[in-house]
Amino acid sequence: MGKIVTLGEILVEIMAQERGQSFRAPGPLIGPFPSGAPAIFIDQVAKLGQPCGIISCVGDDDFGWLNIARLQADGADISAIQIHPDQVTGSAFVRYDSAGDRHFVFNIKHSACGHVALTEAANALLVECSHFHVMGSSLSAPAIIEAIKRAIGIVKAQGGTISFDPNIRREMLADPAMQAALRFMLASCDLFLPSGPELTLLTEADAEPAAIQEILAMGVAAIVVKRGAEGASYHDRAGFLHLPSFPAEEIDPTGAGDCFGATFVTCRLQGRSIEDSLRYANASGARAVGVRGPMEGTSTFAELDALIAGSQGATA
Amino acid sequence: MGKIVTLGEILVEIMAQERGQSFRAPGPLIGPFPSGAPAIFIDQVAKLGQPCGIISCVGDDDFGWLNIARLQADGADISAIQIHPDQVTGSAFVRYDSAGDRHFVFNIKHSACGHVALTEAANALLVECSHFHVMGSSLSAPAIIEAIKRAIGIVKAQGGTISFDPNIRREMLADPAMQAALRFMLASCDLFLPSGPELTLLTEADAEPAAIQEILAMGVAAIVVKRGAEGASYHDRAGFLHLPSFPAEEIDPTGAGDCFGATFVTCRLQGRSIEDSLRYANASGARAVGVRGPMEGTSTFAELDALIAGSQGATA
Repeated sequence: MGKIVTLGEILVEIMAQERGQSFRAPGPLIGPFPSGAPAIFIDQVAKLGQPCGIISCVGDDDFGWLNIARLQADGADISAIQIHPDQVTGSAFVRYDSAGDRHFVFNIKHSACGHVALTEAANALLVECSHFHVMGSSLSAPAIIEAIKRAIGIVKAQGGTISFDPNIRREMLADPAMQAALRFMLASCDLFLPSGPELTLLTEADAEPAAIQEILAMGVAAIVVKRGAEGASYHDRAGFLHLPSFPAEEIDPTGAGDCFGATFVTCRLQGRSIEDSLRYANASGARAVGVRGPMEGTSTFAELDALIAGSQGATA
Repeated sequence: MGKIVTLGEILVEIMAQERGQSFRAPGPLIGPFPSGAPAIFIDQVAKLGQPCGIISCVGDDDFGWLNIARLQADGADISAIQIHPDQVTGSAFVRYDSAGDRHFVFNIKHSACGHVALTEAANALLVECSHFHVMGSSLSAPAIIEAIKRAIGIVKAQGGTISFDPNIRREMLADPAMQAALRFMLASCDLFLPSGPELTLLTEADAEPAAIQEILAMGVAAIVVKRGAEGASYHDRAGFLHLPSFPAEEIDPTGAGDCFGATFVTCRLQGRSIEDSLRYANASGARAVGVRGPMEGTSTFAELDALIAGSQGATA
């Protein structure tokens, strides 16, 4: 069984403790939490017992080692995480305004994250890769876009498949190079994993059904639309399947979409049915939103089975 | 009366709440606090009612605006703080180990701090400058060292004076370019403000009296050695004066040396005696260590007078 591999940012996240808290005055925070969408994704894959690894770059500092230790403990291959001697590990400060919307102060582009590259170790990891996952948030610099394109070429030449979660930060759409990279990814993937409104961000079509047809017509084999509390829908040329979400108390939505995608991709690669994979993915998202910290809510199959069994008991 | 000007890093500081806390696991933090040694220095100068300003660079983010708002509110000229559209405001995470020693994770060199430059606004501020202060911590990149050298040339040509606080982070001494810059600053300043052991870091002499003679022989007019709880000593060619510190509960030492230096420089420029200036500087340091947050303990003359009066009452 080949490895699932991703390439992109490893961050620490620092969270404001209280809703409505400002970053223009001192206040109570909590952190650093291991984070970064590709890192959360690969940690969730590892927790499911699937061989996997991440191509990334951190600084030689507590924040980098915190992430490496977590990913290694959870079973991910960390051999392609470069430790840059002169860069600082990327970071994201997040706070919630009084309406519950998230606001960030990022240090990504000019951090170690900006130096992710296809090193010798990365190329060695890609040789073992049968599925490669890309987060749109990682398409933040020309050199990284180039590295991702090369990685996709390598994996496809080996007969591997590609998944793409647009995971778009608004400011990215304003940049023509990033928009072009997002479109390239859409055209290159086998599995597309948008969150609700992201489905139509890169299509000609404005409405959902037309957008799905447009994307399938591009050669994308399957689309899974993540709808949060409204569940998730799977679409391919043969039809579609919708499953409702599991009840969850929303403590912290960060990382839930990444866990969902990681679980769906892993289940499908391991030969599970579309329905089982979608159910496990929904369970994974539900567990993730219930735990504070972006990577704190990743799940094992035993934990997902327990959540699913508990929910069936409750509704039976 | 001309302005006191400094050039260097503006940061936010995020502090671990508990002694012995690690940055390799999530824990309670507090922040962001306005920080950066030159920023703390100039905020203390401003609080004393002295015209002053800082040449610096921040990102267009909450952390930059937090600092600008504080410095402006306290009376500093903020016209030469560049707001960089593509950089993140610098940061320092600080924690205390179980022995009480501080450990940092810095993001300075590759942050907005790395882009401090003599802009048009900076040159306009320097025209009004009669005293220029340099923190050794700011000598972190060749372009900034060059900007500081040019600023010193401008101020000296106007008949202004220069003060230098080595404020050395250990790793700087390993870098030949930074060590050369520190030596240049020592040779260029009128007032040298080392903390205890820093006195002999840049001299041939190993012992304190010989180091003082060596530095005075270089043309430095005066040396003030900051000794924390042991008070402070003033040295010039005419002799020396030592004053004990004021009693203080040490809550947070960060910034105390910067406040001490700012107060001494301001008092001397305003024509106060060496003894009065040293007493105010000691009072400023004592107030600073008693308040959590690097810039939270800056003082007005009224606050310093109250501390001095209270202390005399206590010992009378």
